[in-house]
Formats: sequence, structure tokens, C-alpha cells
Amino acid sequence: MKKSLAKKIRRVIPYTPGEQPKKDNIIKLNTNENPYPPAPGVVDAIAGLEASPAKLRLYPNPDATPLKSALARHFGMGLVKDNFFTGVGSDDVLAMAFLTFFNSDNPVLFPDITYSFYEVWADLFDIKVKRKPLDENFRIDHKHYLKKKKLGGIVIANPNAPTGLAEPVEFIKEVALAHPECVVIVDEAYVDFGGESCVALVNELPNLLVVQTFSKSRSLAGLRIGYAIGNTELIKAMEDVRYSYNSYTMNLPAQAIGAAVLDDNRYFAETVEKIVETREDAKRRLAELGFTFPDSKTNFIFAKHKSKDAEYIFEELKKKNIYVRHFNGERVRDYLRITIGTPDQMEALYSALGLILR
Amino acid sequence: MKKSLAKKIRRVIPYTPGEQPKKDNIIKLNTNENPYPPAPGVVDAIAGLEASPAKLRLYPNPDATPLKSALARHFGMGLVKDNFFTGVGSDDVLAMAFLTFFNSDNPVLFPDITYSFYEVWADLFDIKVKRKPLDENFRIDHKHYLKKKKLGGIVIANPNAPTGLAEPVEFIKEVALAHPECVVIVDEAYVDFGGESCVALVNELPNLLVVQTFSKSRSLAGLRIGYAIGNTELIKAMEDVRYSYNSYTMNLPAQAIGAAVLDDNRYFAETVEKIVETREDAKRRLAELGFTFPDSKTNFIFAKHKSKDAEYIFEELKKKNIYVRHFNGERVRDYLRITIGTPDQMEALYSALGLILR
Repeated sequence: MKKSLAKKIRRVIPYTPGEQPKKDNIIKLNTNENPYPPAPGVVDAIAGLEASPAKLRLYPNPDATPLKSALARHFGMGLVKDNFFTGVGSDDVLAMAFLTFFNSDNPVLFPDITYSFYEVWADLFDIKVKRKPLDENFRIDHKHYLKKKKLGGIVIANPNAPTGLAEPVEFIKEVALAHPECVVIVDEAYVDFGGESCVALVNELPNLLVVQTFSKSRSLAGLRIGYAIGNTELIKAMEDVRYSYNSYTMNLPAQAIGAAVLDDNRYFAETVEKIVETREDAKRRLAELGFTFPDSKTNFIFAKHKSKDAEYIFEELKKKNIYVRHFNGERVRDYLRITIGTPDQMEALYSALGLILR
Repeated sequence: MKKSLAKKIRRVIPYTPGEQPKKDNIIKLNTNENPYPPAPGVVDAIAGLEASPAKLRLYPNPDATPLKSALARHFGMGLVKDNFFTGVGSDDVLAMAFLTFFNSDNPVLFPDITYSFYEVWADLFDIKVKRKPLDENFRIDHKHYLKKKKLGGIVIANPNAPTGLAEPVEFIKEVALAHPECVVIVDEAYVDFGGESCVALVNELPNLLVVQTFSKSRSLAGLRIGYAIGNTELIKAMEDVRYSYNSYTMNLPAQAIGAAVLDDNRYFAETVEKIVETREDAKRRLAELGFTFPDSKTNFIFAKHKSKDAEYIFEELKKKNIYVRHFNGERVRDYLRITIGTPDQMEALYSALGLILR
């Protein structure tokens, strides 16, 4: 490639997603997917597409109105369609939020250990960042977020990843009140597994944006649906930027299936409850095996073994066709992030760990 | 909203997509959709999803490998999977290409009358632009694109929209050779309806990127699939930027249905042929009604009436539930962009026009 051409190309260090192994018969506990199938309503929605494939010839609703209206009905709380922004997974939503709101020379604040994509988006969009260390127990140190200093923005994953720890709603509220000069994004990807949601605050706090996803608790990672909830002024600003990027982001299957799944609240509650039970059991079992971990409120556990090296365990599990996640950063390289699977999958994990740690 | 917050929000003038009326029983000739349903293979692919909804719980293939491999098989020409980039419609692909390749202080060149999203992306990503006027017949003036002056990039829609006029491959090749210092994007959204494609040149010209879509000739606007074809180095650079934005852009239905539709080449050829025949007939019929137009090689005609105002005709057609597109820019406001529908839809259009123009 010619040098003059090469230097016009944007160079980035991309986010590395968890491995998606192509083999069958593996136990996949590495990307925080839900071990249960999505709600039964999904099948009807797919059958609806099958019955009228000709609909696919038309552009989908550019505003994703059916999906947003279903979300508004689902949440209630006086929220309307225009309190919602939808995107191709919460990654798309968060990227659009960064591009829309973090548009100043002031730095954007987030913890040193958190979802690693925040740094990647900041790099892509030339956003200054300020990362503050989690405390020795992997807790968010509140004082950093309540200082008077002017910021360009704040992002807090709550519960945080990969630690699994949740902060109370009261803290997020204090942060938003302490920083009226910028948007505070709360990334609630895992909130349904035991965290406290800030959704009820979006009309009270003009600078609060809550982001959630269908990929975890709704068991629809394959459909790529994320959404933001905020006051209509914030959402309108995001929609304007989104319309400057792609008018039609949510395809017809995502809109149809996504809306359908929201109606099945009982199935949703039952599967989430099963995962929470399995997680609490996993805490006991992993402790017996010599692991310590922060008290997860998510569908994963971030665990460190008392004597064996995390990377060693990671590789040994892989040999037994069990995939968990290992990150290489400082302070986190001693840990494994283990997604909560079905009870059977977890039993297989404990057996394998028993052999490896023996 | 607080002033200090408001001024951190990115303000843009978004692209305005064509109207998506919610009424039934309209004749929709305003967004260049295909009037025929997608290939029959689509139904089997949807049935496959219905049979295993549990697959939706997993993240889709982040590389869209099944879709890219199907594209490589479809095109042949020695192209491999890694010559392809896929996105959520060609808008997503073009936006990613702008963000990846137009990363310098030199201006990006495109015609003054072309797909209006080019300007919107340039604005969003702070890219300098240089627009050169089409000639008096709406033709691209070749000399502007063959000058020695260093550029930041070039974008040519071929065939161009909304004019419908096609340039020969030889011209694109000359442009790419004249500007080795930048990437030349050829937007071939409409190429299957009669243009000449540059795909065969991508391995010969290191700076050529061809963009195509499933939304027009493949009749899958509702699924949102676009793709770029280029040498593996260009595609790798786009993938790096894409992985910095969203690891999983193509959802499972898009990957599964998109791959299936590529296998049905006979259906594809037949429906494209029908649209081309209807278009050629439309040229005769519209001429009889007093319209003039550039010689379209696309699935639309950009037509001006000898006496009646375009906006008037547009509004009158709408009253009769026939939607065409009208743009407000200089030089184009005298024209209507009419998508080629089925023969029946076109007959209804000619009748309505007969009444309106009487």
C-alpha cells in the first residue's frame, strides 16, 4: 500500500470480544450469554416473518416504533416511546451515546477496571478520559465521582463488569446531581440479575442516561438489541446523531422478535430467578474449591484461586471443552470470569475444576 | 437543559430518509425498494430460525463468516471471505468506510448532486469535502476526478442517485489510477439494474472499495445488509475500526437469511430482468406524459415534467395514495424520483399522472 494512502487510514486498537469457538459440545461460559432459550413468544414472532417474507422487501420502521412502544409499555413509570433509543446491541447504543454526549475537551470519567469497550470508543472518537482505580476490594471509590471538578462525562457500569459488584441507586443519583454539567451514562447490562436500576430516575435527572440490553437477561444476544432510556431531549439528540449515521439500524426480525419477547414477563422472571439461584450455589461451590470473588449481582462470577494461576486454569478448562474468560490486564489477570450456565453445565465445571486443582 | 451540558452535545443536520407511510393500500414508489418478494430460499432460512430459537441466545458470528463466505462463493473471481466487509445496510458500510479511510486534512471529492448521505457523514466525522457540479445533462464531469491535485478521498455512486446515470468501469479505473494517494469508494447500490460493476478490479487497484447492498436488487431492505468489496488490506482496516465500534453488527437472522438468498441466482436474475423491462416501458410512458429524464440504469427514474411543477405532482400523487420522492435542493427540485414498481403499480401511476396532468 502506498504510504500516502496508508497514512489516511484510521488506526485503532480494537476491543477483543470473547472467543466464539466453532466446535459443538463445548460448555460456553465465556461471554455471559444466557443458558436458557429466549421466551416462547419468539417462535410466534418468527412464524409471523415466515408467513410474510415479502415484508422484508421494505425498509424497516426507521424509528423502531413497534419496539420502542413495547419497551414503554413494559416499563410503565410514565415513560413513553420517545424516552427510548434502540440500537444493534448495547454496544451500538453506548457508542452512539459517547459520540453524541462526550463532545467536549473535558475528560470522561470511569473506573480503571470496567467494561473495556469504554476506552476503545473514547480512542475511536478522540475523547479524553480519566480512569480512577477501584479500591482494594474492587469497589468503586465514591469520592472520585462526587468531586466538584468539571467533567466531560461519566460512565458507570452498574453492576460493574468484570467484577460483578453493584452500587446503590442512591450513589448514581448523587453522581448525577454532583455533575449537572455532563451526561452520566449508567450501563445496566446486568441489572436484572440483582442490581438496582436507575430507570425510574430518568425524568427526574436531566443528565442521566440508562443503557440496557436484550443480550443477557432476555436471552437474545443473537438478535442484537440494546436500548437507552433517558429524558426525551437526550434521546432526541442521540436520534439526530443516529440519523446522521444510519437511518435504519434495527432490522425487521429484531423489531418483531424484540417486541414479542417483552410480553412474556413470567418466563423472563423464572429464567432470571434460576440463574440467580445457580449463581448463589456457584458461590458456595467455588469457595469450597478454594476460590475467592467479589459478591456478584450479575450472571457471572469473577473468581481468583488461592494457589493456582488463573491462566493455567483457563487453559486446562479449555482442554476439557469448558470455555471461561481470562483478561490480561494488571490486577485482573489473577481472575477468571465465569458465566453462570445451567446447573448441569456448572456441575461439569466443578468436576473439571476438581480435577485441575487436585 | 443546563447550558454547560447542552454545549457538550454533538449537533448535526441528519439525513432525512424517504417517508415510510403507515397506511396500507398505498403504492410506494418513494424509497427504491424492490416490488417483488425476496428469493424463495428466505422462507427456508426463516424456518431454520423457527426450528431452533435457542440459537438466538448466543452472540452471532462476530465476523459474519457465513455471510461473507456466501458472498465470496457468489462472486467467484478469486475473491475470498476476507475481501468482504458486511454492515447494517450499505449506509453502515459507507459510514464505516468514511470513518476508516477519510482520515486526513485533504478534502473528499464527490458530485454536487449524488446520494445526500455523503455530506451528512462528512459533517458527522469532521471530514472536509469538495463537491463538483454535474454537467448540464446531470453527467459526472470526468475532468474533475482526473486532476493531479491530492485528495483525501473520492466517492462516486455508480449508477449515480438520484439521476440514475451510469459511468463506464473504464472511468472509475482511471480515477483510481489518477489518485493512488486516497481510497476511491464506488457506491454500487443500483448496479444490478444495468450498470457496470467494478468488483473485478478490487485486487488490481489497491485503493478501490466497492460497496453494494441487499436492499434493492435482492429485495431485502428490511434485513439491513450491505457489504464492501476490496483488497484484504483495506477490508482489514475497516474491520479494525468496526471492532472498535461494535463487535457484533450482523444479527443471526441477517446472517442466515442473507446467505440463503445468494444461492437463488435464477430468481434474482428474473426479478431484476422484470424491473428493467418495466423501467424501459416506463421511459416510453413517462415521455408520452410529457416527462424528460436522464437515461436511468437503476430501479428508479428521475423525471421532470415539461409544464407542471414537480412538488405539485408529488402532492397530487400523494392524495391518490401514490408516494414518489421529491428533493428540495437546487437543480433537483424540478424533478421527481420514481421507483420502478410492478407493472400494475406503474399502470396506476400513469393513470393518476394522466388525471393530474390533464
